[in-house]
Amino acid sequence: MLSPISPIYPISPISPLAPKSVPDMPQIGGVRLATAAAGIRYKGRTDVLLALLDKGTAVAGVLTRSKCPSAPVEWCRARLESGQARALVVNSGNANAFTGKTGRQAAKFTAELAAKAAGCRPGNVFLASTGVIGEPLDARAFDGVMDGLVAQASPSGWIDAAKAIMTTDTFPKLATATATLGDTVVSINGFAKGAGMIAPDMATMLSFVFTDAPITAPALQTMLSRHVIDTFNAVTIDGDTSTSDTLLLFATGSAAAQGAPVIERANDRRAAPFRAALNQVLANLAEQVARDGEGARKLVEVIVEGAVSKKSARRIAMSIANSPLVKTAFAGGDANWGRVVMAVGKAGEPADRDRLAIWFGGIKVARLGTRDPGYDEAAVSAIMKRPEITLKVDLGIGTGRDRVLTCDLTKEYVAINGDYRS
Amino acid sequence: MLSPISPIYPISPISPLAPKSVPDMPQIGGVRLATAAAGIRYKGRTDVLLALLDKGTAVAGVLTRSKCPSAPVEWCRARLESGQARALVVNSGNANAFTGKTGRQAAKFTAELAAKAAGCRPGNVFLASTGVIGEPLDARAFDGVMDGLVAQASPSGWIDAAKAIMTTDTFPKLATATATLGDTVVSINGFAKGAGMIAPDMATMLSFVFTDAPITAPALQTMLSRHVIDTFNAVTIDGDTSTSDTLLLFATGSAAAQGAPVIERANDRRAAPFRAALNQVLANLAEQVARDGEGARKLVEVIVEGAVSKKSARRIAMSIANSPLVKTAFAGGDANWGRVVMAVGKAGEPADRDRLAIWFGGIKVARLGTRDPGYDEAAVSAIMKRPEITLKVDLGIGTGRDRVLTCDLTKEYVAINGDYRS
Repeated sequence: MLSPISPIYPISPISPLAPKSVPDMPQIGGVRLATAAAGIRYKGRTDVLLALLDKGTAVAGVLTRSKCPSAPVEWCRARLESGQARALVVNSGNANAFTGKTGRQAAKFTAELAAKAAGCRPGNVFLASTGVIGEPLDARAFDGVMDGLVAQASPSGWIDAAKAIMTTDTFPKLATATATLGDTVVSINGFAKGAGMIAPDMATMLSFVFTDAPITAPALQTMLSRHVIDTFNAVTIDGDTSTSDTLLLFATGSAAAQGAPVIERANDRRAAPFRAALNQVLANLAEQVARDGEGARKLVEVIVEGAVSKKSARRIAMSIANSPLVKTAFAGGDANWGRVVMAVGKAGEPADRDRLAIWFGGIKVARLGTRDPGYDEAAVSAIMKRPEITLKVDLGIGTGRDRVLTCDLTKEYVAINGDYRS
Repeated sequence: MLSPISPIYPISPISPLAPKSVPDMPQIGGVRLATAAAGIRYKGRTDVLLALLDKGTAVAGVLTRSKCPSAPVEWCRARLESGQARALVVNSGNANAFTGKTGRQAAKFTAELAAKAAGCRPGNVFLASTGVIGEPLDARAFDGVMDGLVAQASPSGWIDAAKAIMTTDTFPKLATATATLGDTVVSINGFAKGAGMIAPDMATMLSFVFTDAPITAPALQTMLSRHVIDTFNAVTIDGDTSTSDTLLLFATGSAAAQGAPVIERANDRRAAPFRAALNQVLANLAEQVARDGEGARKLVEVIVEGAVSKKSARRIAMSIANSPLVKTAFAGGDANWGRVVMAVGKAGEPADRDRLAIWFGGIKVARLGTRDPGYDEAAVSAIMKRPEITLKVDLGIGTGRDRVLTCDLTKEYVAINGDYRS
């Protein structure tokens, strides 16, 4: 039943912003992976991922703040309290969201299936689903593949795992980093899926990160909640927060056998390199999500400086990054700073029009609330043709600074989302 | 210098949602209009409107809440305190926004020009500008046309006035209504321009309404502020609040000579028919703005019921109406209720997923948090092909209700806004 190949959901060519290569992913002690084609919705590709986790694995998670979360999100939220994980089941093709009682039953059934096959308790199985909303998920489809998944699970297969959870993604998203913990080198592997329905105040569509570092669940949760702020939560594609956003971080602790100290507090100084590596993996995956925004042709970094606070800078940066008029201007290669002013103005945060300065790709186009006298349209037009552009706004009224990532709004976004379900 | 014809800024064909005809606009005692081609930005079309108002005209206004307003918005805000108006000058092609000190000087210069030509004080001249942001407005262009405008001003010419203020609008937007005030019939004429950068918490791009009813400025302001809530503020095209949004209501009072009583309190019972007529004109113009959303092919009415309050219903309705995924689904003719659930969930307002019910065009597609068992995809698909569609959501947790208007998000929106400035 296992699919030897994992063709990508082929509605769009690979994003021109995709990384040039996929990283070499090391094995993570205590983690085994397997994928299968259960036929949830797609033909000829994998759509189920099983991750098996050794006993003693701690888990932390960040889940969507949507008031209408999916059944798997509710399942995970309840299970995170224990902080213990033994398995993860993810499917693409159906989000099991807005499926009512049937959806809850499907989640429970899936966890029970996996628990039975993996030899653990259902409460230690974590779930995530992505795909269409509002259609019942027939979890019986997992019944035929679960035993095979457990039998097949291996410490490699990271790229296959990343492919199995894709929907409208055009490339698999993986990242890895190492850090020293005590005198031991520990590893962090992560993968994510994104594409659409990506917005702040969430954990991204789906992302799973694994480490062999021995870190207790409370410390892991504190680290994850802290580092999600400037990584996944600083990315927006379309301002639409999903019902299914799930970021889970699993720590198997297998590196303890090689002498790594057990970390019980998030602020433990010995974990500083680990925290930096974790931030790097999360930031890398989040950037890949922005690079694969539906229809994206340009990666746009929005930096806001001189705000009254970081929080205020974030709100203004998000107002800019979510503005359809700003995003279409990037699509059209138009350095339309007037629309940036508009987006600053509508954010509702303190701003003084007559102190505003704006740069596109390092070229100052406006200062003191009006066009820069040295403004060179040709130079800025050249900048706007690049695939990666930084837009900087200095409000000139404080020291608050923040940065978010987004992409342009193209006709392809409209095409992809006008036809997705049919 | 006056242009006998007013060709429409011709970047797009007329919206398929445009009204079939333009209303017959009566004269309003005390109001005279004239338009001219000052060459601000466009060639071969009018771009300046002058309205002359008889002595004693009261004025009320609602202006953008943007923290980066245009110079004319700042000018009007300061002048509204007097409540007295004698002239209105509007130009298209340049918004005089984010133009710093030069912009303030241009506004002052324009008001002084008009005051001199019209024989009034500059402080009684109201201004509005629409068009590109961040480019200096050369107000000297008005110098050559102002005397001609005053000489030419006539009680007719409403359609020409509506055309002169258009930018990416594909049709002029006019509305008229009458009401009895005491035993006298009074009239209300209004026109508006919209198209892009249209969002809640504002007064629409530009709209000007005139009546011969004798109503004092404070009463007029109270009525306008109240009736804007469910008309212009209930329309969103792209969630982008303009720097220039301006709605002004002028009451010349000329109907007093025909016996209309002077209204000094907004709640005066004798003004009930007037208030209803005012609401009708504002609602009509606001709907026309939605019908001419950039690239719009579908007019979408979003009704939210069963919320905990009207305010909560408004926020949820706006979350739905501003969602790129919901809007592209309408563009693609896809009754994608899953995205509606997503938009309800991200609004941050109280909602219970398992009580949600959703209708497209009167057909129930979901109830109790899952798909309606009687759901007929073919019937809903037929609905989704219509040019005007009502989407209703019942949250099932209260009695709060609200309604907003929006349009779909099409490739044409992206095309219009990717090329607008260049």
